[in-house]
Amino acid sequence: VTDTADLAARVLEGDRRAVARLVTLVENESPGATQALSHLFPQTGRAHIVGITGAPGCGKSTLVNELAKEIRRGGPTVGIVAVDPSSPFSGGALLGDRIRMRDLSGDEGIFIRSMASRGSLGGLARATGDVVKVLDAAGFEIILVETVGAGQSEVDIASSAHTTLVVQAPGMGDDIQAIKAGIMEIADIFVVNKADLPGAEATVNLLQMMQRLGRDGSRADRGHHGALARASDAGPAETDWVVPIVQTVATTGMGISELLVAMHDHRDHLYHSGLYRAREEARVAREFELLLREGLLRDLLRRMPPGRMESVLNQVAARQIDPYQAAQQLIEDRCREVLS
Amino acid sequence: VTDTADLAARVLEGDRRAVARLVTLVENESPGATQALSHLFPQTGRAHIVGITGAPGCGKSTLVNELAKEIRRGGPTVGIVAVDPSSPFSGGALLGDRIRMRDLSGDEGIFIRSMASRGSLGGLARATGDVVKVLDAAGFEIILVETVGAGQSEVDIASSAHTTLVVQAPGMGDDIQAIKAGIMEIADIFVVNKADLPGAEATVNLLQMMQRLGRDGSRADRGHHGALARASDAGPAETDWVVPIVQTVATTGMGISELLVAMHDHRDHLYHSGLYRAREEARVAREFELLLREGLLRDLLRRMPPGRMESVLNQVAARQIDPYQAAQQLIEDRCREVLS
Repeated sequence: VTDTADLAARVLEGDRRAVARLVTLVENESPGATQALSHLFPQTGRAHIVGITGAPGCGKSTLVNELAKEIRRGGPTVGIVAVDPSSPFSGGALLGDRIRMRDLSGDEGIFIRSMASRGSLGGLARATGDVVKVLDAAGFEIILVETVGAGQSEVDIASSAHTTLVVQAPGMGDDIQAIKAGIMEIADIFVVNKADLPGAEATVNLLQMMQRLGRDGSRADRGHHGALARASDAGPAETDWVVPIVQTVATTGMGISELLVAMHDHRDHLYHSGLYRAREEARVAREFELLLREGLLRDLLRRMPPGRMESVLNQVAARQIDPYQAAQQLIEDRCREVLS
Repeated sequence: VTDTADLAARVLEGDRRAVARLVTLVENESPGATQALSHLFPQTGRAHIVGITGAPGCGKSTLVNELAKEIRRGGPTVGIVAVDPSSPFSGGALLGDRIRMRDLSGDEGIFIRSMASRGSLGGLARATGDVVKVLDAAGFEIILVETVGAGQSEVDIASSAHTTLVVQAPGMGDDIQAIKAGIMEIADIFVVNKADLPGAEATVNLLQMMQRLGRDGSRADRGHHGALARASDAGPAETDWVVPIVQTVATTGMGISELLVAMHDHRDHLYHSGLYRAREEARVAREFELLLREGLLRDLLRRMPPGRMESVLNQVAARQIDPYQAAQQLIEDRCREVLS
């Protein structure tokens, strides 16, 4: 306990080695991690959390690196959390980590961590949220959360960030079908990267057209749609934020400073419109739901006698018992355990 | 209760209206659904469950429709479950349903249902597994589960299907980076659709090259990697299944019968190698984990006094209490409730 309290104290002082150690504890789901996070929690809520998402090959990682350098030129410190839910089997995340470290190394004001999926997406989302909290508490002012892939992971990013950037590149199958798939709803800023390639103009035009077809170019605020959603989470139906389309060439730095301006504009917009509070509440509700989900299952597994789960699974696989009743039984047994 | 028992009995007789009604109950998370599923469960485990995944625009839906027609020509009945986790906000799934219904309507041996995400991916995965069980119990012999998107949803499909088809199309950004992203690990059969387009040859060559670079063209069996994973779930490290690459043009029917042969070959391979049992056990473990996760949270929410969750969330958002301790407290309170 003294160790965790001490670790938390050093994280609050911004000690990089303590940050790295606590992040590893979080990733490994060590019991000490939760205690340290309890200590840190009151000091969180100050960072601007920015989600960056886009298909593989759109140049997202280079863009995030250049964005981090541009932020540093202005002074603020940056945390980068790169999440790769598509690679649960390979160890690719660590390799990427090392390549990026080399690029941005030597700057104490940048902290980078890559995270690969292990087991469930829910587990990864919870761990990512916890790592963001560690960096937030350590004083990193802007936290860039980068996620590969389309689909649910993008939606997850949108509900865990204050500001969401959706990155496209010309000629990458970014046809109407791909763009329609949930992307319009989550973007606060569109980035057309590799804007020096042929087709960039067409991609920008397509996005503009989609915007006109959409809700007058503005975005409905999503709030929290999970099990803990409340009526108030829907938030204002419309905002007066017109999603900007920023063209960049990450490899040359073109457009990066404009992108940073758009990010700051969006943060200011959130503050002045009162949406910041609504998004913060939605973030908290979503993270709390993940915490309950993971916590309930982990606790149940820990309290089960050895071999019990294996025997239940074998009986279910053999169709001797039905999983719905078996699950209910395990939940009741566990409660006796908790209170005994 | 009599109603649910009656509904389950009619599902077992293959009554289409009963199937449709129970599927809707499952989607709406009605309490009656679980009771009916309990009745049905002993009669499940007979269908060949085939997952089909690929990026938007690769012609997946047309392919699934043609595959269903080809299966029907041979006699077996087909269930189709189309899952779209990328569209949690739009109601696109229902529209797609209607278009497909029209195409395949009039055949009593085909049942189609589209499912869109609502709230959590875990909830969608659990509901999809339950719908598959309903169709399995109703006697549908081959169940095609189609999922849009890249990333975790593909991995989820792979662990819930006996056989997984990964669909690619030429010139859709299917570069090495995209293919690497977890795809090699989950495919039992590669499908290069739109094989009449320029670039089809290149896509086939690329896949062959990736296969040679991979584990001698064979695939490691994944087993179950979630919280309930057991040592035995890893399964045999290598199998002698060489992932075939089948070229199709779904719009003309070219290659569809070859694809069906490959599907049957894979099922036979699973039986003869003993892998069928391993995959079935991994499927059961994964579904049981989803059931516990969802069940634990739903039960907790149901037992909480009105307003309690809202008050906890407000205190967490205001940083007055920390979410880790708050979650633990709610879990303990709930146990008192369960046992009182």
